[in-house]
Amino acid sequence: MTTTRPSPIPGSSTVLPPVERRAVMPAGFKAGGIVAGIKASGRPDLAVAVTTLGPAAAAAVFTPNTFAAAPVRRSRANLAATSGDPRGGYGWASAVVSTSGSANAATGDAGDADQAEVGRLVGSVTGVADELILHLSTGVIGTRLPVAKVGAGLEALAPTLAATDEGLAAMAEALRTTDSVTKVATTTATLPDADGRPVTVTVSGIAKGVGMIHPNMATMLSVVLTDAAVAPATLWGLLRPAAVRTWDQLSVDGDTSTNDTVFVLASGASGAAAIDGESDEAAALGAAIEAVARDLARQQAADGEGAATLITAEVTGAFDDAEARAVARAVISSSLVKAAAHGRDPNWGRVAGAAGNATLANAAVLEAGGLSPDEAARRSGTSATLDPNTLTITMAGHLVYDGRAGGPVPFDRAAAREAMAAPEVVIALDLGLADGRGEAFGCDLTETYVTENSEYTT
Amino acid sequence: MTTTRPSPIPGSSTVLPPVERRAVMPAGFKAGGIVAGIKASGRPDLAVAVTTLGPAAAAAVFTPNTFAAAPVRRSRANLAATSGDPRGGYGWASAVVSTSGSANAATGDAGDADQAEVGRLVGSVTGVADELILHLSTGVIGTRLPVAKVGAGLEALAPTLAATDEGLAAMAEALRTTDSVTKVATTTATLPDADGRPVTVTVSGIAKGVGMIHPNMATMLSVVLTDAAVAPATLWGLLRPAAVRTWDQLSVDGDTSTNDTVFVLASGASGAAAIDGESDEAAALGAAIEAVARDLARQQAADGEGAATLITAEVTGAFDDAEARAVARAVISSSLVKAAAHGRDPNWGRVAGAAGNATLANAAVLEAGGLSPDEAARRSGTSATLDPNTLTITMAGHLVYDGRAGGPVPFDRAAAREAMAAPEVVIALDLGLADGRGEAFGCDLTETYVTENSEYTT
Repeated sequence: MTTTRPSPIPGSSTVLPPVERRAVMPAGFKAGGIVAGIKASGRPDLAVAVTTLGPAAAAAVFTPNTFAAAPVRRSRANLAATSGDPRGGYGWASAVVSTSGSANAATGDAGDADQAEVGRLVGSVTGVADELILHLSTGVIGTRLPVAKVGAGLEALAPTLAATDEGLAAMAEALRTTDSVTKVATTTATLPDADGRPVTVTVSGIAKGVGMIHPNMATMLSVVLTDAAVAPATLWGLLRPAAVRTWDQLSVDGDTSTNDTVFVLASGASGAAAIDGESDEAAALGAAIEAVARDLARQQAADGEGAATLITAEVTGAFDDAEARAVARAVISSSLVKAAAHGRDPNWGRVAGAAGNATLANAAVLEAGGLSPDEAARRSGTSATLDPNTLTITMAGHLVYDGRAGGPVPFDRAAAREAMAAPEVVIALDLGLADGRGEAFGCDLTETYVTENSEYTT
Repeated sequence: MTTTRPSPIPGSSTVLPPVERRAVMPAGFKAGGIVAGIKASGRPDLAVAVTTLGPAAAAAVFTPNTFAAAPVRRSRANLAATSGDPRGGYGWASAVVSTSGSANAATGDAGDADQAEVGRLVGSVTGVADELILHLSTGVIGTRLPVAKVGAGLEALAPTLAATDEGLAAMAEALRTTDSVTKVATTTATLPDADGRPVTVTVSGIAKGVGMIHPNMATMLSVVLTDAAVAPATLWGLLRPAAVRTWDQLSVDGDTSTNDTVFVLASGASGAAAIDGESDEAAALGAAIEAVARDLARQQAADGEGAATLITAEVTGAFDDAEARAVARAVISSSLVKAAAHGRDPNWGRVAGAAGNATLANAAVLEAGGLSPDEAARRSGTSATLDPNTLTITMAGHLVYDGRAGGPVPFDRAAAREAMAAPEVVIALDLGLADGRGEAFGCDLTETYVTENSEYTT
């Protein structure tokens, strides 16, 4: 049980609540996981969560990959059907089903039919209507889902679903593919009930990242459950900027999977008053969701394929938050920076070079992060503003570059190397321009990453 | 002496002339290289080319990195001064100087003063005016140029400059940092003289890529010399789209150096009539420049850090050429595709996933590639259009995915693995949408890349 310190939301004055790394089931859900035999390894590979008090408000973020997998397309369609919003970002849901071992991506019409059959099977064992079921999948691209195994697994799993912490832990375990550890995070928020009395609301997340043994497309899946009561569109309005500041700032190897998905479900079972639209209560719930998202993203980066070190880039002094996030992301995405971190090498030239390549995210991400549609369209893909003469770079606590003092700063290289031999290396850049702030999470690039990814399908 | 086959210009009906990989000095230049002692290895590290008949028309493309090095900023300023064009893309030049071993990047005002002193020293031994000197540099970021060594080297080098193939070869040798081979390419074009009689014009290029032993920022430098006669602005108009189709489609590890530079100098010494503006003659010269650029880019990709295999992505059937180039670039840039190529693994799921992530280049590159400023701004950073139902993927000659036939295609995996055990692996994608075409050049990701880049500065 690890407690991480409270952290300010990058780019805002809000402080995120502290997070604990354990499975705590919010009220209004039951869940579980089982070995269905999809994976050859014999590990748990089928997970289900079901609401116990009727449909929950649901919000989602999906991969932008054009090759989006069948479960992604089906979930988006279901959310669009229940909300009437054609974007498929939010709506209502009573169940989440996850299969590991086959991505059901690039499988054509047959793959869509398979995923529809999974929905029918979930409905038959849980009684949930088809369009209230959300789908997740991860595994090898281009292989068919073994639907018969999924059906048998669902029949065995349904009676065991539990509204307990153990139920959530079992779901987290079955969400894993080859993650070296199960990823869970939980926090709380205090919200008023209908009479204004304080109610403790639980926000818990589970996630899978990218494991050690047989990784494929580094698929990122997460399910966040809460017993808060919140309108679907408001929930989506909280999830999107939180995801922009956390999961969108996570990179293991720069490849975006065909299956990446995050779901947030809010059961309302806590007794807290319903949240609809902007309010202090919405902000508190948003901070709790973001705290869980941020911690899961950090766990995912730390468990990157072959990784030994979590690399965190912290950027301050940028023109604005979008530019700060761009610079942070460029630093943790650089193969040369990642290799240097692996070698415990305080090679700040590579950090400067990577920062100099930073370009702003695409328009959809910029808009989700708070820019107007016009500004997002205008600035997407442009270079972040950087002035070598105002920049400072600090690696693992050692100031190595100070543009106002002429550039390179003499530093104790042996001490810096020693400081970099840690589970987390923080690279801090102060651009010295304005107040924009942001962070990003990555991992070192190791020989193991290459070896594992050279020997996957064959 | 290798002759590569003529290739159509991606995205056009023009066929590129064949290229030979040898140093052929065009008329109007002399060049050479020497050991100046900048590099600890004792290899040649100082190179100079000088025109013999007065200033040559010059055009350049430079790194977009915000942290552009002192030689980049000085060269851009000199071109702007001689042409009056504030962008610094073209002008006049009588000399090129290149130093290897120190990038002279992130060195502040002191670095600018050092580079100015290099210009003064070149002028003193060659008689060339300061603003007619173009500068190249590559090596470790953040270290000062040893100007005294450069000065001594220039005094020794100047008397040895030769208007011969050997002079160009010596320059190419000294341009190398840790490249495993010297990179040269040459071709010819037939152009009319003032009386309409045919004249053979030579276009020769030298380049450095990214070597085997102690790579740093993967700096890409190239100098192309020709004895054609062409106006500076026209030369720039030929170089930019050629670079968009060749060097902009080259990736070794996704990091863009602070020092990347390409210069083209045209002496006019062939006797061919001067080219100014669009014409058949300009197109022929452009094709010759592009043929040299393309072959040098392929040599650079093949010699990527730790690489054993050149990966070429050939994309057809795209919405337009810009989208085809985006898809090709996404495929060869994917760490997972690169690792799979290293393992001779026909893992087409990774190719599909990478293609699904393709986003168009930034506005400047799109504009250089032929889009209008408005269209370039509107489309930069947007996703390339891809339909899984019309896509086909062929790896090393084996059809592995056919969207019109339901997706995955059964293929002989052992034969595909064998076909991938080659110096070059071609991954062909037909998007099946329209007529857009493009290609990109990369290399496999190996344990050696990681090992070398983990152990550089310290």
